[in-house]
Amino acid sequence: MPTAEKLYEARWIVPVEPVGEVLEGHALVTAGDRIVALLPVPVARSRYPDAERIALPRHLLIPGLVNAHTHAAMTLLRGYADDYPLEIWLREHVWPAEGAFAGAPGFVRDGTRLAIAEMLRSGTTCFADQYFFADQAAAACSEAGIRAQLGVIVIDFPTPWARSLDEYLEKGLAVRDAWKHDPLVGFVFAPHSPYTVGDDALTRVRVLANELDLPVQMHVHETADELATALAASGERPLARLARLGLLNPSFSAVHATQLDDADIAALADSGAGVVHCPQSNLKLASGFCPVARLLAAGVNVALGTDGAGSNNDLDLLDEMRTASLLAKGVAGDASALSAHAALRMATLAGAQALCLTSEIGSLEAGKQADFIAVDLDRAATTPVYDPVHALVYAATREQITDVWVAGRRLLADGALTTLDDAEVRANARAWAQKISARRAEAVA
Amino acid sequence: MPTAEKLYEARWIVPVEPVGEVLEGHALVTAGDRIVALLPVPVARSRYPDAERIALPRHLLIPGLVNAHTHAAMTLLRGYADDYPLEIWLREHVWPAEGAFAGAPGFVRDGTRLAIAEMLRSGTTCFADQYFFADQAAAACSEAGIRAQLGVIVIDFPTPWARSLDEYLEKGLAVRDAWKHDPLVGFVFAPHSPYTVGDDALTRVRVLANELDLPVQMHVHETADELATALAASGERPLARLARLGLLNPSFSAVHATQLDDADIAALADSGAGVVHCPQSNLKLASGFCPVARLLAAGVNVALGTDGAGSNNDLDLLDEMRTASLLAKGVAGDASALSAHAALRMATLAGAQALCLTSEIGSLEAGKQADFIAVDLDRAATTPVYDPVHALVYAATREQITDVWVAGRRLLADGALTTLDDAEVRANARAWAQKISARRAEAVA
Repeated sequence: MPTAEKLYEARWIVPVEPVGEVLEGHALVTAGDRIVALLPVPVARSRYPDAERIALPRHLLIPGLVNAHTHAAMTLLRGYADDYPLEIWLREHVWPAEGAFAGAPGFVRDGTRLAIAEMLRSGTTCFADQYFFADQAAAACSEAGIRAQLGVIVIDFPTPWARSLDEYLEKGLAVRDAWKHDPLVGFVFAPHSPYTVGDDALTRVRVLANELDLPVQMHVHETADELATALAASGERPLARLARLGLLNPSFSAVHATQLDDADIAALADSGAGVVHCPQSNLKLASGFCPVARLLAAGVNVALGTDGAGSNNDLDLLDEMRTASLLAKGVAGDASALSAHAALRMATLAGAQALCLTSEIGSLEAGKQADFIAVDLDRAATTPVYDPVHALVYAATREQITDVWVAGRRLLADGALTTLDDAEVRANARAWAQKISARRAEAVA
Repeated sequence: MPTAEKLYEARWIVPVEPVGEVLEGHALVTAGDRIVALLPVPVARSRYPDAERIALPRHLLIPGLVNAHTHAAMTLLRGYADDYPLEIWLREHVWPAEGAFAGAPGFVRDGTRLAIAEMLRSGTTCFADQYFFADQAAAACSEAGIRAQLGVIVIDFPTPWARSLDEYLEKGLAVRDAWKHDPLVGFVFAPHSPYTVGDDALTRVRVLANELDLPVQMHVHETADELATALAASGERPLARLARLGLLNPSFSAVHATQLDDADIAALADSGAGVVHCPQSNLKLASGFCPVARLLAAGVNVALGTDGAGSNNDLDLLDEMRTASLLAKGVAGDASALSAHAALRMATLAGAQALCLTSEIGSLEAGKQADFIAVDLDRAATTPVYDPVHALVYAATREQITDVWVAGRRLLADGALTTLDDAEVRANARAWAQKISARRAEAVA
């Protein structure tokens, strides 16, 4: 039975590919989970006379946003330990709390649900996740209907999830096997960082990633301390070490990458490896400034991530786009660096590239998955509109995102989540926060 | 007849003074346009048994935000010319458009109305404005019920508003005289910048400001080009010149101040002059980074401004707080720089200080004006709440601001403006944008 077509007739449609195109008077045509065409409204109506028509008269329609790096379940630690640098934040606050709670039944499920509720509301239709208990995360994603790429975590110390390299790999890959036929849930190798994963483990990750054809993403060159410590210990820069170990290739993402010299940028460009830029996290932890304009000039793919809500403190990729665009200009000393259209591309197609998913998502093109969002620009703060992408990137907020579709399914409908019980998700999160706060109060007492 | 008391019983109340205080189980007590007290709910109820009770069970109550620098009517040029550096943006785009339209009947009124609609919706209860035709701006403010400090503009070239120094001063002060008994509309001398206002004009401004007891605010050290040009021409830094002319004192605000050496910071600190920090504008125009942490360490008052929507592109002081806090950490290389509580203080009490209004606004203290806002934190993106000010600064958006009061009057009620017709305001703005676009199309043709 052929699937019925739908015509999404929006005030503006920005397909992201080709670059900078803004269509008016057009309809996005979908059938089932796929995009069929992008046509002038009269043509679409005459070609698909029986199609359902969805009117979006005040709206900008764009591809769903791709959050290329987060730690979804950590959303339960949003605001738990702010205004500390990375090392203190991790070792004195986050890791102890995670040690106490990450393994508790339902923590990852409830945290991931909260993250998904927030991400759908802010236009994210696909995210790359790095967290323990990917089985719970996968179930939460599947239940909500969001697209995700979950991490097969590797870290050289025991956590509630696993105690050894073998166990990390075995458990992570077992989750992958269990979900391998799910159209929305994919996997990525996620060795934590150069300073927490040794050469042997990285070599095993490389071999497995090649065999299984999975991408790899890793926190790399996040802080000056990381560089200084590595150089003091071995004389070798972490990126050079990863290159020596054969990790750098087009399916590798260096997350953060705030500390890059010319040779690092050349190594990324030559290998085809990409960067996932997390501007708000880098600012909040005072980790440094990713040289976005220089990376783009060198031809490096730069995707966008929120990082975890513990260090951001939200998962709002729309807001992250604005920060990325503004900060890139400031850092480059060039007001034309990372234009609004370039920032939108970073948050969509470049994200798809980081996840090795450009054949499926990232732009509104025939044959791709029907992942897209509608943004109501008829608000005081986005009036007037000279270019809808400028209004989106420089002035809109997540609440203007009224509707979100993943694989053709409407997950946010006129501001209401259709697959998650928002109030229940928030109530569960508050209950976890009370336990987490109580533990801290005891530890202090 | 005594005015009836009202008790605002909010989930959290943050009075800003004292620093860092977060009250639970408290009520803000108002009578007419004034704050009467801040008391535990049982005490408030027993002391004012007949008072009306306003329940805000999911809300954080804070002082209204003070936008210490904007150009309200320029909101009609939001997104008109993005991604250009300051000089090109001003001289090739903004000034020509303003030359053509600023003097058109109703332009400033309609632009200011749009700005006010946006500012009220994003929690701003008071703003300092620099624009021509302050008569129209004053009328728009009065009609809307927002508090404002309007600029007596001085600039060394003719504009649609005035042709000479005498005319700028005469017209500006005539508007002030006409509004001098209005409790909400005040005035500030606003010589544009060191590079557009000569010594004679600045001296006249100084004398008049002293005589009339008005503050002065001016774009100062906004870009490296401004400094280089001044140094090449005279060998004197603009701030040194202002000091020599006697301008620097506690009622002077240097807006932007991205280019400051140690002597500049010492001159500001010693004179008591303040800075108005506009982080998003500075980033977007690639003007440079204001050294916020160093200024605060030196004891300089740093207020917060959005600048005009033409270079931001919104008037959202909540979002500006987040950018200010994140950017200060990144620039200082210190994750503890400009904490969430410090950012909130910058957007409230420090703004009041920049406007010389600390006796009236900026904190929730008995005797001050009843200017305050309520923020609903019960949303996915601000759950859980470990500290409501962290949730506010690092994760909330303007749409979570449900209610806004100025001088005790509710101007935003559960998300709806009470004094402005939002749809009409937007329709008028769209009509202006069409004219502005048509003129540009003609100019290009």
